[in-house]
Amino acid sequence: MTTLTQIMETVMAIAALDTDAQAPHSDADLDAEMGAIGARARAAARTLSRASTDSKVAALTAAARLLRERQAALIAANEKDLAFARDKGIAESLIDRLLLTPDRIEGMAAGLEAIAALKDPIGDVIAEWERPNGLQIQRVRTPLGVIGVIYESRPNVTADAGGLCLFSGNAAILRGGSESFHSSGLIVDCLRAGLVEAGLPPDVVQTIQTRDRAAVGALLRLNAHVDVIVPRGGKSLIERVMAEARMPVFAHLEGLCHVYVHQGADLEKARAIALNAKMRRTSVCGAAETLLIDAAVADEMLPPIVADLKAAGCAILADERARAICPESDPAQDSDWVTEYLDAILSVRVVDGVDQAIAHINGYGSNHTDSIVTEDAAAAEQFLAEVDSAIVMHNASTQFADGGEFGMGAEIGISTGRMHARGPVGAEQLTSFKYQVRGAGHTRPL
Amino acid sequence: MTTLTQIMETVMAIAALDTDAQAPHSDADLDAEMGAIGARARAAARTLSRASTDSKVAALTAAARLLRERQAALIAANEKDLAFARDKGIAESLIDRLLLTPDRIEGMAAGLEAIAALKDPIGDVIAEWERPNGLQIQRVRTPLGVIGVIYESRPNVTADAGGLCLFSGNAAILRGGSESFHSSGLIVDCLRAGLVEAGLPPDVVQTIQTRDRAAVGALLRLNAHVDVIVPRGGKSLIERVMAEARMPVFAHLEGLCHVYVHQGADLEKARAIALNAKMRRTSVCGAAETLLIDAAVADEMLPPIVADLKAAGCAILADERARAICPESDPAQDSDWVTEYLDAILSVRVVDGVDQAIAHINGYGSNHTDSIVTEDAAAAEQFLAEVDSAIVMHNASTQFADGGEFGMGAEIGISTGRMHARGPVGAEQLTSFKYQVRGAGHTRPL
Repeated sequence: MTTLTQIMETVMAIAALDTDAQAPHSDADLDAEMGAIGARARAAARTLSRASTDSKVAALTAAARLLRERQAALIAANEKDLAFARDKGIAESLIDRLLLTPDRIEGMAAGLEAIAALKDPIGDVIAEWERPNGLQIQRVRTPLGVIGVIYESRPNVTADAGGLCLFSGNAAILRGGSESFHSSGLIVDCLRAGLVEAGLPPDVVQTIQTRDRAAVGALLRLNAHVDVIVPRGGKSLIERVMAEARMPVFAHLEGLCHVYVHQGADLEKARAIALNAKMRRTSVCGAAETLLIDAAVADEMLPPIVADLKAAGCAILADERARAICPESDPAQDSDWVTEYLDAILSVRVVDGVDQAIAHINGYGSNHTDSIVTEDAAAAEQFLAEVDSAIVMHNASTQFADGGEFGMGAEIGISTGRMHARGPVGAEQLTSFKYQVRGAGHTRPL
Repeated sequence: MTTLTQIMETVMAIAALDTDAQAPHSDADLDAEMGAIGARARAAARTLSRASTDSKVAALTAAARLLRERQAALIAANEKDLAFARDKGIAESLIDRLLLTPDRIEGMAAGLEAIAALKDPIGDVIAEWERPNGLQIQRVRTPLGVIGVIYESRPNVTADAGGLCLFSGNAAILRGGSESFHSSGLIVDCLRAGLVEAGLPPDVVQTIQTRDRAAVGALLRLNAHVDVIVPRGGKSLIERVMAEARMPVFAHLEGLCHVYVHQGADLEKARAIALNAKMRRTSVCGAAETLLIDAAVADEMLPPIVADLKAAGCAILADERARAICPESDPAQDSDWVTEYLDAILSVRVVDGVDQAIAHINGYGSNHTDSIVTEDAAAAEQFLAEVDSAIVMHNASTQFADGGEFGMGAEIGISTGRMHARGPVGAEQLTSFKYQVRGAGHTRPL
C-alpha cells in the first residue's frame, strides 16, 4: 500500500514540476529564487558543520534504505525522463546513461552506504605543533561550505554528489541535466528524507527544480552563497561554467589522456596497456585518446599494438611517420591531438624521445592522466616529474584514473585544475581547514 | 665605480619607465603586452618547476646580496617614489609604508635569505600508499604555476612575494602600487639578476611596468597564463579583484578581528589580550576591531579593559549596553561592526553568551582571526569549532595572526577564503600536487 501511495504522490509531484518547468522566468525572478535556495543552503551548512559523524551516517543509511523502498516510484519517474529524452531525439548511447534499473538503484544505495563507511574527514587534525612561546597550533579539517554541482544526464550523480557533499559536511545545490529531471528529483527526495530521519536539515541537499537553462546562469552568479562549483559534463558545459562562474570552480576538463611507448618499453606491457587504456571502456574520462611511440621502436612495436587495437574494433588515425609503418591507417589531422573521442578511435604519433613526448602531452593534453610504458627508470622518472597532469603513470593503464581505484571511495569527478582539489575528488578534497590556536593569556611582544 | 654606473643605469631606466608610463594604452594593446608577459612567465615556470633546490637557494642568496650592493640606487629610486607620492598628496602614514631605509633594505635581503633557509616544498611526498593490486600511488607536491600578485605601496612586498613564489617553484607577475614604481622596479631587477646568476630564467619574476591602472584589468583577464591572483591591499582593491578576476583568487579580505571576553574569563588575561590585540600595532590585519563581552561580567570587567585602552590612546565606540557601563564612550553605529579601523578605535558590544558572540562574529566578521578569552574549556572548544574563521584562538592575542609567528617563515598574506590556502600563505600554500602512479604493466579489469 505504501508503495502505491508513494507512486501516486510521485505522479502528482511530477505533474506539479512539469507545470513549474513551463513557467517563464525573468533573470530577476531566477536570482531571487536562487538566492532563497542559497540562503537555505548556507543555514543548513552551518548546522551540518556541527553534526556528529553518527548523524551523517544515519542520514546516508536512511537515504539508501529509501532508495531501495522507492524502487518502483524511481523507475516510474525514470520512464517519464526516458520518454522526454526520446522525444528530444537523444541518441540511444546517451539514453543508456539516463536509464535506471533495479541493479542501478541498488548500486546508488550501496554507494551511499560506502560513503557512510568512510572515515569522517571533518575535525581531523591535519597537523599540530607548539611554538617556542608555548602557543599550540592545530590545523583542523573543516567543511568547504556550500557546493554547487552541475552535471548532465546520469541520475546516479545525484546520489553520489549529494552523499559525498553531505558526508564531508557541505550543503549541496544540485543541478542535473533536464533529461534526468524526474529521476533526480526523487533521488533528492530520498536524501532529504534521510536527513530529516537523522535530525539534520533537509536543505543540506537541494535541487534546482526548473528546466529553465537560465537557472544555471543564476547559480553561477550566486557567489554570496555558493563557495565552489563542480561541473561534470561535456566540454561546452565546462567552458560555460569556467567563463561565467563568480566563485571558484573545480575544473573537470575532458580527459585527453596519452599512452607513451618509450624506446625502453617492454613490448608485451606496451600492447596490454595501450589496448586496455583505449578499449576497456571508451566512454570514461580516463580512456586514452592518443598513443605516442618512440621512432626507435615504432617499426617493431607499432604494428602489433595497432593490430591488437584493430582486432578490438578501434579505428586508428596516424601521423605521417606512423602511416609509413601502418599504411592502412587513416591520416590524423592537427585537430586530432586535441580531440577527446570517447569512442573506439585512437590518434597515433611517432616522436623522437621522452622530451618530445612530454612537450606533446603538456602542449595538447588536458592535464588529466598520462602514462609512460618503459623499463628505463630514468625516462620514467623524468616523465612522472615533468608531465603536468593530475595523474602521471608508469607502466599502468590510464583507466586506473578513478577515485575507487585510488582507494578513496566515491568521487565526484577528476579535477584537472591545480587549485585545491586535483585528481579524484573524494570526501577529503571537499574540505577546507582552519587553524585553532590555544594560549595561556599570550600577548605578542612589540 | 660599479655603484656609480649602476646609479646612472638606474636613472636612465627610470627616465625610460616614466616615458612609458605616460604612453596611453588601449585595452587591446594592454592585452597583447600582458599576454606576452604571461607567455614568458609560463615558459619560465616550466623551467623553474624542474630546478634544483640549490639553484633556487643560489638565486635568492644572490638577490639578497644585490639588494645590499645596490642600496644607494634603491634609496635614490625610492626618493623619486616619495616625491611622486607627496605630489599626489598622500598621507604621511602611508608615505611611511613606502619609505626605504638602509635598515629596511637589509630587512628585505635578510627576508630572502630566510626564505632560502626554508625546506623546499617541491617534490615532497605528501602521502603514499599501495593498492591491493600492487599499484603504488604517491601524492607529490608541485608548483601552482604562474601567480599574479597585486599589492599597494610597500616595496618590501615585492621582495617577499617574488622570493616566496620563486622558492615554491612558481613564476610571479607582480603589480605594485604606482607609488612604489621605481623602488619596486629596482627590487625586481635584483631578483632577476639573482635568477640569471643561478642559471634560472629571469622571467620567473616580472613586474608590470606601467602606471596605467587598466593594466590590472588586463592582468585579471589573463586566465590563460595566470593560475591564481593574490591581492594584498585595501577593501576596494580586493573587491575589484574578486569581481573581475577570471582565475582563482586567494582572497585576502580585511581583518575584522574580534576579541570575545566570555563570562568565564580571567580578568587579567582579558585586559592584557584586549590591549595587545588592539594596540600593539593598529595597522596590521590581525589587529582587533571589535570587543565582545558577556553581560554577566561586563559590569566587573569592561571598566578596567576600557581604562587600559583609553590610557593607551584608544577611542571606544560602544553599544547601548556597554555605554550604560562606560557612559563616557561614544555610541557605536551598525556600520561599526563591519568597519576595519586600522587605527586606535575599538567598537564594543555586550552579548548574552557564547552563542550570540559566535553569531555576531560569523555575521559581521571577515573570517580572519578571532579570539575567546575564558577559563571555561567547553565554551572555548565551542568557539574554536563554530567560529568560521581562518584562525580561531583561545586566550591569545589576535596579533599572533602572522606566518612568522606560526613558524612558517615568510608569508605573502593571510587568506580569508576557504579554497586551497587559508590563513597565513607561505611557501607550502603556494603549491599544488600530482599523483604519481607506478605499476608493473597493470591493466584495469573490466
